[in-house]
Amino acid sequence: MPELRQDPATREWIVVATERAKRPQDFSTPPDPRRQARPPYSPSCPFCEGNESQTPPEHFAVRDGHEPNCPGWKVRVVPNKFPALVPMGDLTRRHENAFFRKADGVGHHEVIVETPRHDLDLATMDTPQIELVVFAYRRRYCELRDDPRVEIVIIFRNHGTAAGTSLVHPHSQLIATPVVPNLIRERFEAASNYYDDTGLCLQRVILDKELEVGRRIVDQNESFVAFHPFASRQPFETWIMPRNVQPSFGNVTDDELRRFASILKRSLYRLHKGLNDPDFNFVIHTAPVRDEDQKYYGWYLQILPRITTTAGFEIGSGMSINISLPEQSADFVRQIEVPEEVVKT
Amino acid sequence: MPELRQDPATREWIVVATERAKRPQDFSTPPDPRRQARPPYSPSCPFCEGNESQTPPEHFAVRDGHEPNCPGWKVRVVPNKFPALVPMGDLTRRHENAFFRKADGVGHHEVIVETPRHDLDLATMDTPQIELVVFAYRRRYCELRDDPRVEIVIIFRNHGTAAGTSLVHPHSQLIATPVVPNLIRERFEAASNYYDDTGLCLQRVILDKELEVGRRIVDQNESFVAFHPFASRQPFETWIMPRNVQPSFGNVTDDELRRFASILKRSLYRLHKGLNDPDFNFVIHTAPVRDEDQKYYGWYLQILPRITTTAGFEIGSGMSINISLPEQSADFVRQIEVPEEVVKT
Repeated sequence: MPELRQDPATREWIVVATERAKRPQDFSTPPDPRRQARPPYSPSCPFCEGNESQTPPEHFAVRDGHEPNCPGWKVRVVPNKFPALVPMGDLTRRHENAFFRKADGVGHHEVIVETPRHDLDLATMDTPQIELVVFAYRRRYCELRDDPRVEIVIIFRNHGTAAGTSLVHPHSQLIATPVVPNLIRERFEAASNYYDDTGLCLQRVILDKELEVGRRIVDQNESFVAFHPFASRQPFETWIMPRNVQPSFGNVTDDELRRFASILKRSLYRLHKGLNDPDFNFVIHTAPVRDEDQKYYGWYLQILPRITTTAGFEIGSGMSINISLPEQSADFVRQIEVPEEVVKT
Repeated sequence: MPELRQDPATREWIVVATERAKRPQDFSTPPDPRRQARPPYSPSCPFCEGNESQTPPEHFAVRDGHEPNCPGWKVRVVPNKFPALVPMGDLTRRHENAFFRKADGVGHHEVIVETPRHDLDLATMDTPQIELVVFAYRRRYCELRDDPRVEIVIIFRNHGTAAGTSLVHPHSQLIATPVVPNLIRERFEAASNYYDDTGLCLQRVILDKELEVGRRIVDQNESFVAFHPFASRQPFETWIMPRNVQPSFGNVTDDELRRFASILKRSLYRLHKGLNDPDFNFVIHTAPVRDEDQKYYGWYLQILPRITTTAGFEIGSGMSINISLPEQSADFVRQIEVPEEVVKT
């Protein structure tokens, strides 16, 4: 019997289509030849060490004393060469034919190059390197939230063709927008209604309830819990949520960030191992910068493997059809061993 | 300079990323070998004429006097063999751990087999055949809206792998859900707010303004207008909107349906021709069945070619990045000639 489940954070219903359900191991993907064949260095790759002149000048890099925009870095943040938004222009709303609203595409679009090495990935690089990456996330987040034109900073990663990557060199991206997206307004409305009704933080309650149920938890450490959420939209959707529930990714502490790097690494390693390096997106859901003090909101990271395709029903309804039970996928993922040398924390 | 545009129907912002923009002709896709190699009949295809026993018994078919579930049909509607929702079960909300909401997956999931021929498509079959298809849509819509458990009927089509098709035989689908999706609630809220503020139907105004601007119109006939909307989310997104703006697809007249078939055929033919048979989804956006009398809402059909990939930013923000200007894509599509023998109306 198929089941309807409601996502408490968005109030959207999900269809768990048990008649179409596959076993967790059946979601394993064929290896992507583009990723498999990568050398450690590619002369034509703008993100490889030695090719710094192929990108716009860097905003920030972790370096060993060298000059900016030269080799000798470990993580490097540069403007996107083909930006979706740019840090100039006019945010005044204009109108076409006195009706259609528009404004200049003001904002920021940056690339976080995660390593000088062309042939690594978050699932295969060591945890200290991932720490540098997430520290770079926080640094750029905090710098950009101070731009008065910025309403929200969205940090995300596209891994593989099905996830929208064009360059295979490991990198994340950041887009800072001058409007609060509807989707975020709706999440806030759900959370503030819940707070008004109960006096509780919705995200806190979701985390507590997932911990009580237990079956969908895949990993945890002192500061974070990773689980396949009750109303997962896609097979193997994974949320990494801080135990210290608070609205803004920008306000995580150094200790938390290190534990975040560790659980992120473990989570991606398990997907890599269990599903044969699937394409995926991840995104850090955080509060708009002017809502960073609301006590009823919580940031978290969402990983969405791209192993099924959204189709017409999803486009028409906004509802997802999930052909996997999160209880079963969590069970499968939890049993994948993470070797000691992978953990390193 | 990139541009932000707001979709008036959802109030969501879209980024038109001019720095990444391609010319319309550059979106042309490589031909899909699965579609190219199709014979007129495939013994293993459950939707081919002669293989009726491979599907569940039909709900409806256009037939020339033959028995149900035998050859001799022109359009055939059958239950989906692997349904996302089923017409049984209990809609009472239950709770997991006194918090997570769920219910049985009650509803309907049907397949509209568009032709007995394995090797055709809506873009390549004749218009009288498409009339039979859209008449079948309306018939099943009207039958299912009478089921008291049904809140909305969503008719959609997935064309190609990137659009989520598993079977290449031409078919559409219909899912009737027992909940009103959030997305639809939000569209209604935007429309009812607009009505409260102005006394006007938002959809009517969108259509009138698009007609006034004119540059994004690609086709029109006595009853319908096809255009690339101001805030297109994807390259070549196309809306087909009735001039007689009213909430429910179920209430279109016979004359309107014939003109709908004609403009749908012409629109799909142009995409097929101009972009080399791209993968696409289309979906009929219509009112929930208990809102069919609201005067401020309007149904329409949305075609979404799947020639770019949604990525992490879209998942995190709900905002889309469109690397094409609708004014340019409309210009390109408008210039594709539709030969007389294709029109036939």
